[in-house]
Amino acid sequence: MKRTAYLADLTSAHLDQTVTVQGWVARRRDLGKLIFIDLRDRSGTLQIQIEPESPAFAEADRMRGESVAEFTGMLRLRPENQRKAGSGAYELIADRATLLSLAVTPPFELSKGREVAEDIRLKYRYLDLRRPEMFEKLKMRSQVSAAITAFLTAEGFLNVETPLLTRSTPEGARDFLVPSRQTPGEFYALPQSPQLFKQLLMIAGVDRYFQLARCFRDEDLRADRQPDFTQLDIEMSFVEQDDILDVSERLLRHLFKTVLNEELPDPFPRLTYQQAMNTYGSDKPDLRFGLPLVEVTELFRGGAFTAFASAPSVKVLATSELTRKQIDELERVAKQNGAGGLAWLRREGEGFSGGISKFVGDMATELITRTGVKEGGTLLLAAGEWKKAVTALGAVRNALRDLLSLATEGFQVAWITDFPQLNYDEDSGTWTYMHHPFTAPHPNDLALFGTERQHEIRAQAYDLVLNGFEIGGGSVRIHDPAVQQQMFGAIGFTPEAASEQFGFFLDALSFGTPPHGGIAWGFDRLMMVMSGAASIREVIAFPKNNRGSDLMAQAPSAASGAQLAELGLQVEVGSE
Amino acid sequence: MKRTAYLADLTSAHLDQTVTVQGWVARRRDLGKLIFIDLRDRSGTLQIQIEPESPAFAEADRMRGESVAEFTGMLRLRPENQRKAGSGAYELIADRATLLSLAVTPPFELSKGREVAEDIRLKYRYLDLRRPEMFEKLKMRSQVSAAITAFLTAEGFLNVETPLLTRSTPEGARDFLVPSRQTPGEFYALPQSPQLFKQLLMIAGVDRYFQLARCFRDEDLRADRQPDFTQLDIEMSFVEQDDILDVSERLLRHLFKTVLNEELPDPFPRLTYQQAMNTYGSDKPDLRFGLPLVEVTELFRGGAFTAFASAPSVKVLATSELTRKQIDELERVAKQNGAGGLAWLRREGEGFSGGISKFVGDMATELITRTGVKEGGTLLLAAGEWKKAVTALGAVRNALRDLLSLATEGFQVAWITDFPQLNYDEDSGTWTYMHHPFTAPHPNDLALFGTERQHEIRAQAYDLVLNGFEIGGGSVRIHDPAVQQQMFGAIGFTPEAASEQFGFFLDALSFGTPPHGGIAWGFDRLMMVMSGAASIREVIAFPKNNRGSDLMAQAPSAASGAQLAELGLQVEVGSE
Repeated sequence: MKRTAYLADLTSAHLDQTVTVQGWVARRRDLGKLIFIDLRDRSGTLQIQIEPESPAFAEADRMRGESVAEFTGMLRLRPENQRKAGSGAYELIADRATLLSLAVTPPFELSKGREVAEDIRLKYRYLDLRRPEMFEKLKMRSQVSAAITAFLTAEGFLNVETPLLTRSTPEGARDFLVPSRQTPGEFYALPQSPQLFKQLLMIAGVDRYFQLARCFRDEDLRADRQPDFTQLDIEMSFVEQDDILDVSERLLRHLFKTVLNEELPDPFPRLTYQQAMNTYGSDKPDLRFGLPLVEVTELFRGGAFTAFASAPSVKVLATSELTRKQIDELERVAKQNGAGGLAWLRREGEGFSGGISKFVGDMATELITRTGVKEGGTLLLAAGEWKKAVTALGAVRNALRDLLSLATEGFQVAWITDFPQLNYDEDSGTWTYMHHPFTAPHPNDLALFGTERQHEIRAQAYDLVLNGFEIGGGSVRIHDPAVQQQMFGAIGFTPEAASEQFGFFLDALSFGTPPHGGIAWGFDRLMMVMSGAASIREVIAFPKNNRGSDLMAQAPSAASGAQLAELGLQVEVGSE
Repeated sequence: MKRTAYLADLTSAHLDQTVTVQGWVARRRDLGKLIFIDLRDRSGTLQIQIEPESPAFAEADRMRGESVAEFTGMLRLRPENQRKAGSGAYELIADRATLLSLAVTPPFELSKGREVAEDIRLKYRYLDLRRPEMFEKLKMRSQVSAAITAFLTAEGFLNVETPLLTRSTPEGARDFLVPSRQTPGEFYALPQSPQLFKQLLMIAGVDRYFQLARCFRDEDLRADRQPDFTQLDIEMSFVEQDDILDVSERLLRHLFKTVLNEELPDPFPRLTYQQAMNTYGSDKPDLRFGLPLVEVTELFRGGAFTAFASAPSVKVLATSELTRKQIDELERVAKQNGAGGLAWLRREGEGFSGGISKFVGDMATELITRTGVKEGGTLLLAAGEWKKAVTALGAVRNALRDLLSLATEGFQVAWITDFPQLNYDEDSGTWTYMHHPFTAPHPNDLALFGTERQHEIRAQAYDLVLNGFEIGGGSVRIHDPAVQQQMFGAIGFTPEAASEQFGFFLDALSFGTPPHGGIAWGFDRLMMVMSGAASIREVIAFPKNNRGSDLMAQAPSAASGAQLAELGLQVEVGSE
């Protein structure tokens, strides 16, 4: 090691001393006969001054932007009027320079990083990561991961690595397959999560488990998914729901305090699924602003506005004055999210104008009272089956946040609890699990299995929500084989089908299984929210684009005929 | 949480208090009308006594081995003559019992774990892991991984996750492929190591990187390999070889001290590759015993024993008296490791008998002096091309260790340095890289590239050796594109072939690359040696067997026609 210190670690103790520094040429200016170089390392920048008579001059003169260089010389205070914070207070008067690696011209200017097309930044990711804001995100991710490891280890959790070449897991998404060469024609699956393995570790008596686990889902990528991603996976034995929530809260408070110096509430607020949906139209409500959905179903029941008269649910949002164009845009959002339309009203004095105002009649006073809408303000109404109505209006609520910049600074966290155990899929006319088939139902609701009220069964399942993002989810698991069979029955799994898919796990349950439960945090998403990044790609060193391609390494790519022959595979691709 | 504490955490403070404990029924005995249960959790065991008049009796009577149970009652000291260490000092007089999960009869007795066929233990791994010695290995692995994270984070290293769905990396083994559904006919590769990505992170300016990285190699599994494994991956910028060795040494000393309370030497001994091969016949010598190879080439040169007379190298090992049967077995080892045969001599007085003694003649005194062979002791000799002779005799040396129990207790660590840069493959008549093609040659040896002496080029490469196992290896990397081209030239890579395979990486080198280097530790193997396990399967929670199968989850397995169709693949398996 030749360097005296990282650039940002130079202090007044180094002043008027000979120091050696190393880094990248962030900027070079030739002023008169002087060369000025802004040298950058991961910690900061330092101005290097090379005078024409310096023995370093000829070498420094060869340096171009993004070259790697080493300088030795005297550290001086900069002139008072040029001094900045940190290493910006100093400059190095170089008398030795070494060009360690000459750089060809970069494909984009690092200082303009955010304006550069993302495909270019992804192709030259190693250059994009040189931008200090990108390095800071990698650094925060590393800090958080170290803090998680230290915290959970101190609490007696064991970090256990689970297999990556394994068998299909029950997450419901599509598996990535890995052909086996040793048994051609057979395949491993990459795990969608360590779900079954962490439950098996509880059956094994590990009692407290965690892992920053790599997971894989072969989905058609939406804006902000990655085919391989990381989750913080936690499982505990001999616990109830509150124990799992308690560890999660303490851990998240610890991370926010130590990494961001932010205080999260103690305890976290809790909303049931019913409350969250009913009040915010979302099971991951953004609580950085109010704007609750208001119940007005019975006001419209049997009234003149026939679209609302017999609707099972009518909900309304009260907001400030909106233009017709804004309302049209919000109606588009409502329709995209399942509503037939979005009705509206504008308050004028003690009544309403515009939209469906002719149907309001004598309910105007009650509407004003319930919603608190201000003079000139707008009411937005959606009707329909309850879940559809609130979901559509919840999406409108989020659109209003973006439109009107309603979200406050900082972080708002909450638990959403009491999710439904079962989901009725209208298209297929079948019942499916809401989280996964090993989620334990609420013990008071067990009698509802197999009845027409089984949609009312509450799961011992919970999500952790931060600023409108689901950053974690988990459940108490079924540890009783009889309940597990009941659950499989409810979702139409015959014992044979269950055994075919999860036989080894069902066997394991019969050898003495402790009560257990856990949670998985979406680590990429958590880091995105903590670091204020616009996408999870910003907090992953080498992400795929939204077509699943690594533009830098150029993956995926063709395989050789010899490789395919060894695997006993033939590619059969039709015209594209 | 209902339990008062883990069983081993019960102390005299709990004596004569009502406590609640939970765990597995390790053993049940019915003595007279009393039931005694040894309850086990991950920390230890506790004896539970259930008296016939206890309200807990009926429930306890339902409990069978490996059932999960909860007991509440008074904690008492055991009678003095039955007291053992820790929780063995106490017993719980239960007045409440709950059978939390009834176990069916396990397929093997846990207490006989080590005698059970490994296939059965792997199939029911969750039962095997209940054995305390297995749990202790998982726990140690977790401790070591947490200690690594804390140590390297404190030293300014960033934990960065690199992609698992990527492109072939240059480790030289076979890749596992992952078919892409979004671009059918194309494949991702699972990484054999993060080699290129960690070098790209140095080009990105990360400066200090580590990762406990999951890696994949599709090899025909030898006794102690796994298709997916874990390595501790480290890379540093602006360093020389000694900086990397220094961090590695301090980290390993820290781990041994904190986890095992063992002191490793400071600094670690270093042997060059030449020294290690010449003295121990291995580049991963077991230094827990002596038995060096002794040089006798010129003694035999031109002598009566024609097999040795013109041999480039003759080496000898001096050991205690051996039987003919033992010598035959050692000759088999020598032949398996490339020798034509293994010659031997038995010391008798100032001369030799047996084996090739009739050829010894007047060199007897010199042989005795050089080897120090004792009266009745055996000399074992191998001859041939230097590397072949020492390798064969090195294998004999290890066999003697096992035969005669030569290895001392404890841990012997060393660095092996100055590996050859290039390897000549006699079969194909081509030069290949020894570590990987990005290893930097020794700067003094650069002029030898392309000459007939290029086998003499030393690499700035090093291995970390512990008790005869290679537990780490690394190198300073090439950071100069011109040297990289020289290296590709030496191993017969045309610029086009290099560009086809590593183009994106060679591009990256041209944008300003700092001097850098690193190391990768085989984490599974390190844990095996630290924990005294007989195989790496003992330190992996859910390992594959040596045919690459997960006997518990039954992976790999067949894929459905629909899955294959989505991937554009057909299975074409011939008769097996």
